[in-house]
Amino acid sequence: MMTKEDVTMMILSAKKTAGLTWEDIAEKIDMSPVFTHSASMGMNAFPEEKAALLVAALGLPQEAASVLNEAPTKVWEQAVPTDPCIYRFYEIVGVYGPTLKALIEEKFGTGIMSAIDFDMSVTKVPHEKGDRVKLEMSGKFLAYNSW
Amino acid sequence: MMTKEDVTMMILSAKKTAGLTWEDIAEKIDMSPVFTHSASMGMNAFPEEKAALLVAALGLPQEAASVLNEAPTKVWEQAVPTDPCIYRFYEIVGVYGPTLKALIEEKFGTGIMSAIDFDMSVTKVPHEKGDRVKLEMSGKFLAYNSW
Amino acid sequence: MMTKEDVTMMILSAKKTAGLTWEDIAEKIDMSPVFTHSASMGMNAFPEEKAALLVAALGLPQEAASVLNEAPTKVWEQAVPTDPCIYRFYEIVGVYGPTLKALIEEKFGTGIMSAIDFDMSVTKVPHEKGDRVKLEMSGKFLAYNSW
Amino acid sequence: MMTKEDVTMMILSAKKTAGLTWEDIAEKIDMSPVFTHSASMGMNAFPEEKAALLVAALGLPQEAASVLNEAPTKVWEQAVPTDPCIYRFYEIVGVYGPTLKALIEEKFGTGIMSAIDFDMSVTKVPHEKGDRVKLEMSGKFLAYNSW
Amino acid sequence: MMTKEDVTMMILSAKKTAGLTWEDIAEKIDMSPVFTHSASMGMNAFPEEKAALLVAALGLPQEAASVLNEAPTKVWEQAVPTDPCIYRFYEIVGVYGPTLKALIEEKFGTGIMSAIDFDMSVTKVPHEKGDRVKLEMSGKFLAYNSW
Amino acid sequence: MMTKEDVTMMILSAKKTAGLTWEDIAEKIDMSPVFTHSASMGMNAFPEEKAALLVAALGLPQEAASVLNEAPTKVWEQAVPTDPCIYRFYEIVGVYGPTLKALIEEKFGTGIMSAIDFDMSVTKVPHEKGDRVKLEMSGKFLAYNSW
Amino acid sequence: MMTKEDVTMMILSAKKTAGLTWEDIAEKIDMSPVFTHSASMGMNAFPEEKAALLVAALGLPQEAASVLNEAPTKVWEQAVPTDPCIYRFYEIVGVYGPTLKALIEEKFGTGIMSAIDFDMSVTKVPHEKGDRVKLEMSGKFLAYNSW
Amino acid sequence: MMTKEDVTMMILSAKKTAGLTWEDIAEKIDMSPVFTHSASMGMNAFPEEKAALLVAALGLPQEAASVLNEAPTKVWEQAVPTDPCIYRFYEIVGVYGPTLKALIEEKFGTGIMSAIDFDMSVTKVPHEKGDRVKLEMSGKFLAYNSW
Amino acid sequence: MMTKEDVTMMILSAKKTAGLTWEDIAEKIDMSPVFTHSASMGMNAFPEEKAALLVAALGLPQEAASVLNEAPTKVWEQAVPTDPCIYRFYEIVGVYGPTLKALIEEKFGTGIMSAIDFDMSVTKVPHEKGDRVKLEMSGKFLAYNSW
Amino acid sequence: MMTKEDVTMMILSAKKTAGLTWEDIAEKIDMSPVFTHSASMGMNAFPEEKAALLVAALGLPQEAASVLNEAPTKVWEQAVPTDPCIYRFYEIVGVYGPTLKALIEEKFGTGIMSAIDFDMSVTKVPHEKGDRVKLEMSGKFLAYNSW
Repeated sequence: MMTKEDVTMMILSAKKTAGLTWEDIAEKIDMSPVFTHSASMGMNAFPEEKAALLVAALGLPQEAASVLNEAPTKVWEQAVPTDPCIYRFYEIVGVYGPTLKALIEEKFGTGIMSAIDFDMSVTKVPHEKGDRVKLEMSGKFLAYNSW
Repeated sequence: MMTKEDVTMMILSAKKTAGLTWEDIAEKIDMSPVFTHSASMGMNAFPEEKAALLVAALGLPQEAASVLNEAPTKVWEQAVPTDPCIYRFYEIVGVYGPTLKALIEEKFGTGIMSAIDFDMSVTKVPHEKGDRVKLEMSGKFLAYNSW
Repeated sequence: MMTKEDVTMMILSAKKTAGLTWEDIAEKIDMSPVFTHSASMGMNAFPEEKAALLVAALGLPQEAASVLNEAPTKVWEQAVPTDPCIYRFYEIVGVYGPTLKALIEEKFGTGIMSAIDFDMSVTKVPHEKGDRVKLEMSGKFLAYNSW
Repeated sequence: MMTKEDVTMMILSAKKTAGLTWEDIAEKIDMSPVFTHSASMGMNAFPEEKAALLVAALGLPQEAASVLNEAPTKVWEQAVPTDPCIYRFYEIVGVYGPTLKALIEEKFGTGIMSAIDFDMSVTKVPHEKGDRVKLEMSGKFLAYNSW
Repeated sequence: MMTKEDVTMMILSAKKTAGLTWEDIAEKIDMSPVFTHSASMGMNAFPEEKAALLVAALGLPQEAASVLNEAPTKVWEQAVPTDPCIYRFYEIVGVYGPTLKALIEEKFGTGIMSAIDFDMSVTKVPHEKGDRVKLEMSGKFLAYNSW
Repeated sequence: MMTKEDVTMMILSAKKTAGLTWEDIAEKIDMSPVFTHSASMGMNAFPEEKAALLVAALGLPQEAASVLNEAPTKVWEQAVPTDPCIYRFYEIVGVYGPTLKALIEEKFGTGIMSAIDFDMSVTKVPHEKGDRVKLEMSGKFLAYNSW
Repeated sequence: MMTKEDVTMMILSAKKTAGLTWEDIAEKIDMSPVFTHSASMGMNAFPEEKAALLVAALGLPQEAASVLNEAPTKVWEQAVPTDPCIYRFYEIVGVYGPTLKALIEEKFGTGIMSAIDFDMSVTKVPHEKGDRVKLEMSGKFLAYNSW
Repeated sequence: MMTKEDVTMMILSAKKTAGLTWEDIAEKIDMSPVFTHSASMGMNAFPEEKAALLVAALGLPQEAASVLNEAPTKVWEQAVPTDPCIYRFYEIVGVYGPTLKALIEEKFGTGIMSAIDFDMSVTKVPHEKGDRVKLEMSGKFLAYNSW
Repeated sequence: MMTKEDVTMMILSAKKTAGLTWEDIAEKIDMSPVFTHSASMGMNAFPEEKAALLVAALGLPQEAASVLNEAPTKVWEQAVPTDPCIYRFYEIVGVYGPTLKALIEEKFGTGIMSAIDFDMSVTKVPHEKGDRVKLEMSGKFLAYNSW
Repeated sequence: MMTKEDVTMMILSAKKTAGLTWEDIAEKIDMSPVFTHSASMGMNAFPEEKAALLVAALGLPQEAASVLNEAPTKVWEQAVPTDPCIYRFYEIVGVYGPTLKALIEEKFGTGIMSAIDFDMSVTKVPHEKGDRVKLEMSGKFLAYNSW
């Protein structure tokens, strides 16, 4: 059986051969670059029609479409990430996590921001003292039930 | 000597007595609620004049101002946070970390988003299917040096 | 300031003195025993009117009501629980977790069961070969967003 | 020798080819979907006659029946699961574990719910604000011995 | 409120003052030394009448009886014990665990030995080449359910 | 070179083909089932003549005898075992470890039970309320040296 | 696709065959030995023209140049390094980390030394009582933002 | 008995009262700021005459001198430091550790840099694009013995 | 009740006041310095008459003698020690552990060196290139039982 | 390229074929058995002429000599070793580590015993109550620098 790892390798190879960026690929299937990359890496499932579009756009074998549409088991490798680019986000959660919690609960009541009904984008913001990475997330507020 | 923990307790107590929100306090010292909460919890240092303003606004003892201005040692309690509200952010870093890395490097070149030259805000976005938490971060891009 | 730990101790003491069970207390405030115990232990927040009812029912000081209504920071002590009664549930998640995931995704599509918009009950079911514990959970299905 | 991993792969492949759900397969051998999935994944042992039925229903090689009937060694990969769907159940055990313990002991006396003499089901409950996952477990109460 | 830790300290102090061994105390309440020590340490609950006997035998305050009868939360300090006497038992489980599993399943079918419906004794066996510790455990066999 | 893992696979395969139990094999070489299984799994070394007997009894290649006689490096996979059958023994050490230590030291003086000069057996004890697993261990007492 | 691991193996093999040191290779591409080794191991990305120079100097296949220019995912194997040479540096961070923090903040204000805009060198300093390793690092100071 | 923690608190208090920097204090006792801070924090032992000088300079009680001269037990709190300023040094060891090892062994032969016969300094280097932290370490090379 | 920690503090205080070394104390009770220090720290039990001698020699209260004679629970704080002096021994076990095992088994047969029937000494050996620490251990060989 | 693992396998195979002990091999190259085994396992580097001798003595391919002479990266598999023979040494470091530190510092001043400029031997000492393992280590004392 073809696995999600197999399809990820096919996508990376086709992307390199065609000289495409993730933004280019995302545009071809009319999705965000964040979701496109994440689902290509096997960490999210493409909706059925998006999987078909991606297979067509990159010339992947037909079986890949159903694999891209399967629900993934999300496995990350380390409690503390080692890559500096990823670690900095982990550090932000460590330093500002209690602050996010306090402000969310002050604004919305007791509950959390969903990481499932959720989207995110990354933008480059030119700045004279050095360009800045802008990261925006939006997640549905979920109130704790009491019963 | 007065410690950062002592001052945090004074702030929480004054806040409760006065019936203030973090947004109220942030407004009094003209800073963001994220930074105001974080530095009140002892995870960041207030600039000297902001520390003085906060001490005046909440009626804290004078010595608290210099404590609020000291550089903190940032300690978090767990590699994997247990509180559901904070865990969801940790999960987002786990699931989307490699995606953020790929897109940042595609847009900016090899490097990272700074977690030091950095700011963040939380907003409530009303939505008919349920309000949403909007989280925005901006950090300076830092390119890896080669030498 | 009165903390959640303080109020938990007051509740346990009042409960022992009055000879009440958690079911008795839950009935007095018209909530479930599961939620009543969990929020009394400081792991959930009582709705404002329930906090007031509990304070009245157990003769707690007035300040306790606002503390019971505060959003808690949920901290658990160990990745692997040691108490045998709790460990067995942890073991069930380990052994049957992938099964729950497969069946939920087969029935609902890609997504999860919410642990926030969630309720649970425990019942004793008499049985000739030995009584059985019946545990029922209900959580809202949350579909993964794609964007 | 044929291993449990080998047989799991055969089942997944036959299931995909035949377009069956776990509910379909469970029905063919007259067992629950939870147990059917779990034992197909190698985390439980099928009773001898059920193993034979499954082998017949899916057209597996004869040797697979004895493998499906062998006692498994149950190995899970992580103390803290990373997949969000499984993590939520782990979180429930963390948050509500002491509550389950308190209520079980209040109703039954000192002891635990067995995770061995145990069954479980998953049901979809339609709901206007969003469908709900209903999870029911039943386990024999085991009283602590004193001697 | 009197805690299990408080009562453990009272027992240890009374035992030392009276110059009793655990065997002596166990005899006074007609229980085994293993259970008597374990429940005195707060790791098991004494049956009501045994708690009363112990309180009388050692001259403890009356409130101690109900504390000794409460269900304990069993917490151990380390995944890998450091004390050499305890470590050796941990090592035996590591080295012989798969063997115990194989032989139990060969003799009884798929299942486990209960650690709840369980008893244990320690005996000194004189031997010319050096005395030997004899440890005997007996636990009810629990067969895995299939459903 | 033939490894202990290779020989373990040969034994398991010959055992299955011949339809033997571990008790049967142990009897053929006049050793206990516990030691026979453990050494067959590569966790103990067979005495030279027993290795020869086993090789003859199961029709293994001659080189296997010297491999079975080699000192093993004992590696276990996890600090906390996941298989329920093995976990229960681990739990017993956690719960009763300090009790075993206290009673051994009360009976023998300061020291430990050896896990090296050690033997163990497993027996099935029929019982009307459910059969019981009887586990007996005997280890030499080792007194701490003082110098 | 050729991976960074593949290219590292090619470099090590070419280096051995040609009898070159890392200093020799660094000189050929006019970079420091530290950066040259680190990027050859796949822990940093060579600038495009340096990658081309290296490929030419060592006779590597053309595709290797683009691989050497790709942003790496930096993965280290252990929280506590075992090799004594590397451990000593880890120990220095443990022992002197708070000192470095205190002195940096005293000299520069609240902030950190960047590990991204960063360079390092190693020199051998002859000394009559035994040669000394001189290690020099230079990193840009990054001030914490307040907002 | 006065402990190293007690003396550290006295030094911090005297330093704050007198408005001194670590550089000022280091100058008074003619040692480096790195060693002065580290030994004041209890992570190194002051030579006897330096301890006397420090006690005199800061007006500490006489007993403090012998405490400052005692060999410390060096304890650090975490395998992975959380404070961003210290973490960056940890990250450098993770990323560049194998490089340091390779270059040291290329220049000196098989061995390590001592972390005991060792010194270190921190300097501020003004730079138009942002000041830089310069860190210099020197440690004796220790060759592995062969025997 | 007086604890082992209490007695350790009394010994350290008396030792400091009297200006004694561990060698001096060991001589007074005619034991080795290694055992004397270890048992004074509460990691071993003094034989009854040695405890009495120590109490007399240092002028401790009479109750201390029985405490020094009690069997200790040996607890160490970390899997990986942080103090450099202790770490080096841990490193030696990591690097040379498999070597010690191979040579012991080659010389003695399958088994281990006892850490219970065991003694150890530390000596200073003057050497022109720098004095050397000589560490000698002697432990009884324990052969694995087979049964 | 031939790796250290490859050469280790060649040595083990040649040793078995020739029926040699580690002592025999050590004698052929005039080194100690400890160092010979450790370097053969790839945990130390043979001096160049010793590597040549070993290759000749065991009939290894010529390339093996340069591999045996390369500096190894020392990796151990677990913070807590599982093999009983190795664990006992780990336990000795845990129990006696602080004692070794105290005595070394009392005899030598503040510093450590080197694990690099270091040698070790293992001897069998016949004894009527059971033979004893004698382990001797000698390491250079390294004094902490102050600066």
